[in-house]
Amino acid sequence: MLILVSYDVSTESAAGRRRLRRVAKVCLNYGQRVQKSVFECKVNLAQMEILKAELLDEIDEEEDSLRIYRISEPLDKNLMEFGKFKAVDFEDTLIV
Amino acid sequence: MLILVSYDVSTESAAGRRRLRRVAKVCLNYGQRVQKSVFECKVNLAQMEILKAELLDEIDEEEDSLRIYRISEPLDKNLMEFGKFKAVDFEDTLIV
Repeated sequence: MLILVSYDVSTESAAGRRRLRRVAKVCLNYGQRVQKSVFECKVNLAQMEILKAELLDEIDEEEDSLRIYRISEPLDKNLMEFGKFKAVDFEDTLIV
Repeated sequence: MLILVSYDVSTESAAGRRRLRRVAKVCLNYGQRVQKSVFECKVNLAQMEILKAELLDEIDEEEDSLRIYRISEPLDKNLMEFGKFKAVDFEDTLIV
């Protein structure tokens, strides 16, 4: 399934900046960054649970906000993207 | 339908900061802010087209990134939220 991981981590403190880096690092293991604090990840149920647990280990629930959405598929019918970044289509043929 | 509007607007310049404010202002007409640059909006197809046009009027496609996702419904089955902000459930009974 396709999920969107979106987070707001306060960068006012060094600890917050460190959390921000670690949250991004976790997400990179599961998918691609499409905006500064937004990742698209392709996961199964088991991977979802592990990703969730890893992210909850990194954020400070008193300070930060984490949202994980399930996105309707196929993505190309349910996403409009404009501007600077164009995401890589997981399903597209990979030209090597 | 339920959509997620997510954007990255560069805030290095005064023009960017102005665009950021105007993009947020447009989104507020259609839904609720759930993170700094993420809004959940409940729209029909016609409203979606108008929202898209209004947002494209505000962003600089050379500088900024705008993504509009359709979110699977019902929201409570397709969203996990953790941390500081809890979104208002559009469908929930409004206690006045």
